[in-house]
Amino acid sequence: MESNYFTIIDYPTGMPSRDLFALRHRELPELADGEVRIRNTWLSVDPYMRGRMSGQRTYIDPFVAGEPLDGAAVGEVIASRDARFQEGDKVSHGAGWRDVAQLSGEAVHKLPDLGVPEQAYLGVLGMPGMTAWTGLNRIADMREGDNVLVSAASGAVGSLTVQLAKAKGGRVVGIAGAPQKLEWLESLGVTPVSYRGKDARELAADLHKACPDGFDVYYENVGGACLEAALDNLRLGARIAVCGLIDSYNAQGPTPGPSNLSKLLFHRARMEGFIVMDHWDHYPRFLEEVGPRVANGEISYKETVEEGLDATPDAFLKLFEGGNTGKMLVRL
Amino acid sequence: MESNYFTIIDYPTGMPSRDLFALRHRELPELADGEVRIRNTWLSVDPYMRGRMSGQRTYIDPFVAGEPLDGAAVGEVIASRDARFQEGDKVSHGAGWRDVAQLSGEAVHKLPDLGVPEQAYLGVLGMPGMTAWTGLNRIADMREGDNVLVSAASGAVGSLTVQLAKAKGGRVVGIAGAPQKLEWLESLGVTPVSYRGKDARELAADLHKACPDGFDVYYENVGGACLEAALDNLRLGARIAVCGLIDSYNAQGPTPGPSNLSKLLFHRARMEGFIVMDHWDHYPRFLEEVGPRVANGEISYKETVEEGLDATPDAFLKLFEGGNTGKMLVRL
Repeated sequence: MESNYFTIIDYPTGMPSRDLFALRHRELPELADGEVRIRNTWLSVDPYMRGRMSGQRTYIDPFVAGEPLDGAAVGEVIASRDARFQEGDKVSHGAGWRDVAQLSGEAVHKLPDLGVPEQAYLGVLGMPGMTAWTGLNRIADMREGDNVLVSAASGAVGSLTVQLAKAKGGRVVGIAGAPQKLEWLESLGVTPVSYRGKDARELAADLHKACPDGFDVYYENVGGACLEAALDNLRLGARIAVCGLIDSYNAQGPTPGPSNLSKLLFHRARMEGFIVMDHWDHYPRFLEEVGPRVANGEISYKETVEEGLDATPDAFLKLFEGGNTGKMLVRL
Repeated sequence: MESNYFTIIDYPTGMPSRDLFALRHRELPELADGEVRIRNTWLSVDPYMRGRMSGQRTYIDPFVAGEPLDGAAVGEVIASRDARFQEGDKVSHGAGWRDVAQLSGEAVHKLPDLGVPEQAYLGVLGMPGMTAWTGLNRIADMREGDNVLVSAASGAVGSLTVQLAKAKGGRVVGIAGAPQKLEWLESLGVTPVSYRGKDARELAADLHKACPDGFDVYYENVGGACLEAALDNLRLGARIAVCGLIDSYNAQGPTPGPSNLSKLLFHRARMEGFIVMDHWDHYPRFLEEVGPRVANGEISYKETVEEGLDATPDAFLKLFEGGNTGKMLVRL
């Protein structure tokens, strides 16, 4: 049986172009003992994957040019030599960017039965959702009634963060760009602030208008002007959870950081980077807490869906152009 | 009785000049009930005072042009209408930048009897010492055997920080400039690294040479290239205590921050600003722990002393030119 997969042909600097990605084919070997073969139905593309294209080890192994890319995916078992899996099982795993995956049963997880669409386990109930929950609760230590600011607030991570913060009694401000994103945020009870056409100073002024008392928590997905503007609007003892800095992922060279880090001093504030994988032992608790609220519609989520394996690179590249509301997905 | 004091005649931008400071005289009123009159013997000048010259409230009230400046001082009681103080008592208080202070007994503290010179309570056993201890233990949460990096390591705060870190079993690297400062650090068992003539990248390479495993703790007094170089040399789970950012205190406008804040993410690192005043209830514990070790010579400290009230502005300005080893003081 053949597997079609994407690889990168080089390690890009700056914004990757479409021709960085090449579709390749590979005949799969016989299924070995303990292995599972899966027909993928949904693929995830996520901003962190850009960091894996540098050829350098960061906190995760880099992609290797010429080899299949990987990433989160869900699919259906089509053959199994692991007793725990049977044909037809819906599963999630890490062998994305391809149509057919073959891997050890150890690296495959049956989808829980929570009555949500299977692709939710790539978004609101998957890594992005777990990232939102971890950053807000375990890193930023959000407390009831905190004022919370979230950048990229309509993205896969941000849109769950704002809802979890609202549910915890927070006053929540979300930064986004496109009008329909701002409207969605407003419909969730979030005060939307657009970053478009604003430098850090102007954005800071608008954040001040949106929440004159300042923020106890800043959930950072972007960096750049967002971070600088947020630093100008901290309350005493503020906590900044650094989840991502998408603003710099495609930079051609070093981009200067915020000029106002002294605000960390004045406000006795804390800024902490985290990687969700370190917290994965808490995933069951997250699922227990958030899963039922997604199933009953209390937590809403959006998806931006591209169709077919061929569209995977485009789906990925759109992440850096604000092209997604909620989770960016590829349906196979 | 007359009090001679310094004031500022304006709110400076950039590096203040000597003529910003004016010596004035004032006839002291009769000593009121509860008040104490003190002949100051030692005055402290500290980098944080630059922040008080902006005319804007930061974490502390700004200096008011035309009014007496203030800051830490020690002296001898020459008259008292507070039953707790008698003529001849050695005391510390906050009415520095003057020869004779008159203030409520509530704001005056008798010097402990630890057998150290009185001016030690302005340095190694005063605010700078308490700042070193607080940042290292309460903010950076230094643990036995940590690799510790300290910027401005031969200054009043840094030179105690490196010694406390050594005593706690740390491998300690200190950044400083002048050769005699680097030599002093070496004599304390600290690996010295000079910042002179190096950009962030070169400094980062030298820090890597000095401690190839990277740092668990970075005690930050400087900012600028030091911070950028330190971010490039963090270990997993590193803690950065931001005590000061002297590099930017005299900047004419916004100076860009480090371009590599993403290292906070990769290394799951935490960066936290603090103000020693918030932790002052721990001062007795600090004194109990550090006082005897200063008295018995286990902890060494240096002083850079300027003579006479007139020299106070120069002493202050030298802080920004690397003009001090250890604590900068004025002896009256």
